[in-house]
Order: sequence, then structure tokens, then C-alpha cells
Amino acid sequence: MSEQKKKTTIVLFSGDYDKAMAAYIIANGAAAYDHEVTIFHTFWGLNALRKEEHPALKKGFLEKMFAKLMPKSADKMGLSKMNFAGMGPKMIKHVIKKHNAMTLPQLIEMAKEQDVNLIACTMTMDLLGLQQEELMDDIDYAGVAAYLGEASEGNVNLFI
Amino acid sequence: MSEQKKKTTIVLFSGDYDKAMAAYIIANGAAAYDHEVTIFHTFWGLNALRKEEHPALKKGFLEKMFAKLMPKSADKMGLSKMNFAGMGPKMIKHVIKKHNAMTLPQLIEMAKEQDVNLIACTMTMDLLGLQQEELMDDIDYAGVAAYLGEASEGNVNLFI
Amino acid sequence: MSEQKKKTTIVLFSGDYDKAMAAYIIANGAAAYDHEVTIFHTFWGLNALRKEEHPALKKGFLEKMFAKLMPKSADKMGLSKMNFAGMGPKMIKHVIKKHNAMTLPQLIEMAKEQDVNLIACTMTMDLLGLQQEELMDDIDYAGVAAYLGEASEGNVNLFI
Repeated sequence: MSEQKKKTTIVLFSGDYDKAMAAYIIANGAAAYDHEVTIFHTFWGLNALRKEEHPALKKGFLEKMFAKLMPKSADKMGLSKMNFAGMGPKMIKHVIKKHNAMTLPQLIEMAKEQDVNLIACTMTMDLLGLQQEELMDDIDYAGVAAYLGEASEGNVNLFI
Repeated sequence: MSEQKKKTTIVLFSGDYDKAMAAYIIANGAAAYDHEVTIFHTFWGLNALRKEEHPALKKGFLEKMFAKLMPKSADKMGLSKMNFAGMGPKMIKHVIKKHNAMTLPQLIEMAKEQDVNLIACTMTMDLLGLQQEELMDDIDYAGVAAYLGEASEGNVNLFI
Repeated sequence: MSEQKKKTTIVLFSGDYDKAMAAYIIANGAAAYDHEVTIFHTFWGLNALRKEEHPALKKGFLEKMFAKLMPKSADKMGLSKMNFAGMGPKMIKHVIKKHNAMTLPQLIEMAKEQDVNLIACTMTMDLLGLQQEELMDDIDYAGVAAYLGEASEGNVNLFI
């Protein structure tokens, strides 16, 4: 029988552009090495999966506040350091272009092409008032149990 | 002989309400799946274990400063994002209530009931001037060696 | 045949003094327990490896900005919490001295003496415009593939 695939799991908790980049760079690297890779998006990390255009949704007051105040997509995220009211992300995107590196939306696209398993945490979606219509189409929805199932067999498990 | 229990270890470094919630949600999930779970509280994560009422303690100037400026209990922690001078935690606690989810103090209580091993890092307690009298009663005290002993046999090891 | 050494790998993403301290304390602990230890410095974590004195280097505008705005060495890093415009690190260094604990530069020195493998991520060096001349002498340079090679055999893998 063939050897089992190695597993890499990442909890993406952070809503920062740089941290999400690190998560997706590791995930894409692991997928290229034929690991089975899962990124479990929870809390502010869910914003990486938001799409800017979506149907109008009925929301309560706090849910509207969160939706308005959180970054509206991966491309809109700020930096964990040196954000400078939005200048930091512009600087980073400029150097990414200059060095022919990949932007966060490109890294996410690549992860999908490599069959990285993108999961949105349903419990924190509820808390932040995010609905499936606001998130990308080809992702999965699950809770902490599904994450633990993967992670307990994982070779590399990270919380970012 | 029966199979050995799976182990999950979490270093809780962060003193943010949302990050501590994530740590305790994962810990409680792992305990429910019969993992042996340890949360090693270090640096700002020690604040999750502080109790608001405690005997008056003799402290030096810097230790008093830290004690005054750090959140005085799990319930008093701020958010890692969108804290808005304390409005953020109020919003989160409101949606937690609305969705019948658990607050951080409730998650900590549940972890104790499920025999999650709560450890306070003695070295960083010294640095921040925290004394055992200020922390919850039913926790353990240890250093990095104890953490590494657990983690090197762990299936899921996270730094939060 | 003798048993294989346990492996500990840490991705040091953070440029905060306290988080880097935690990373190096865990790394030194693991090395003392005879683990093979790797710290992979990426993004802001690269600043822990900067040396203050180095030859003048030719840099573009953005690279100069990053070099100027980022902490110029481990000793110059700020805190993740309670930084208070630089007062926080002074407080921490004061209590470190008082308790005969080790400062971050001392912890890094110890890690080198214990043969902890210090790696600078070449991809993010490019992005932030950091050159080998600016970093410590006795470190290695590698990309995400090298990290994943170590981590997939690791017993303890952390992202800090």
C-alpha cells in the first residue's frame, strides 16, 4: 500500500495582509510538496474569503457594523506592523510587484488551483454576522471538530 | 494495551479576548474528543488566569504598574482587532449572548470541568510581577521544560 | 541504531521584543533537551537578525523606508502589548535585569552557542529590501521549501 499523504493545517485567525500572506505561502509550498493542506479561517481571518460584490443581505445593527468595519476582501486588509493608515499595504504591494512575487489574492487563487482545502469557521461567521453569500463560492464550511480531526493527524499545524 | 491518548498543547501568549477565546474553544473541542489538553499561559496570556478579588500584595513600582495596566481578568481583556477603546469587546460579548455562544470566562470554566491542564508560566509571572495569590486557585505552575515535555509528544501544538 | 533526535521548528514572523523572547526561550529550552531546533525568520521577524553596524548599502526608496522604519536590531524592537511609545520595552528590560533573566540579544547569543539553526527567509528579505550584509554573520538563508522539509518531521512546530 502506498504511504499516506502528509498533512498541513493552518488556523488563519488574523485579518492582517502580511500574516495571511505568510499563511498562504506556507500552504502553497506544502501543497507543492504534495501535502494535504487545510486552511481553517476563523475570526478576522474570515475576511480573506470575503468577496467585494455580493447580493444585498438583511443584517442586524451589530452585524452591519462588523461588515462595514472589517476589511471587505483579502485585497483590503491592513498590515500587522507599519500599517501607517493604509500606506503600509501600498508599500508591500509595490515591492511584491517589483519582485514579481504574488499578491494575497493571487496566493489565494493559487491555493484553490492546488486544491488547498479552504474552510470558513461557521461559529465565528455567526458571531461576526457573515453569511455564505458574502464569501467566495468554492470553499467549505465547518466547525472546530472538523479542524481537530485534520490537525490531530497533521505533521505541520500552525495558528496564524 | 489501550492506545495512548492524543495530546493537544497550546501556548497562550496573547492577552486579547478574541485570541484567548480561540485558544479555549480549540482546547475545549480537543478535550471533548478525549485529547489530553494543556494550555500554557505565558506573558500577557497570564491575564486570562487573574482573579479580580485577591488579598493586598506587596509589590515594587514596576510590578504595580504592570498589575495596574494589564487587564485584571479574562473578562476585562481587549480585542486584537477593532478594540475601539473598549467598544469592540462589548460588541463581541453582545453577539456571543445573542448567538448563545460562550463568553471567555465561561469557556475557561468549561475547560476546568473538562480537566484541561491550565498552567501559568513561572518565569513570566516573575517578569510581570504576578503572584500566585492573584491567579485562579486550581491551576498549575511550571516552566518551559514542562511545556516542552508535553509538546514533544503532542499531536496538535499551537502558539496563540 | 540510535533513536533520531526530536525536531522543533519555529517560524518567527513577529518583530515584537516579547514575542521574539518567547520564541528564543522555547528554542533554547528545546535545544537544552537535545532537540534539533530551527528558527525560520520571516517578515518582521527578520529584524531580530539585523546588526546595527554594517557597510553602507545601495537601496531603492521603498527599501530605504523599510530599513529606516523597522527596528534596527533585536534590542530595538517594541512590545506587542503596552509598548507606550517605547516605555514598555524599557520596563521589560528593567525587570529582566532585576530577575536575572536574559535579554533578547542574550537569548539569541545562547541559541547560537547551542547550535540552533537560525534561518533568514530569502523571499521576505527581498520584499523588505534587507541584504545579507545587514544581518548577523553566522546564519543561514533559505526559502519556504527548506522550512517545510524541517517542519514536516518536527515534533513541535510553532508560528510566532
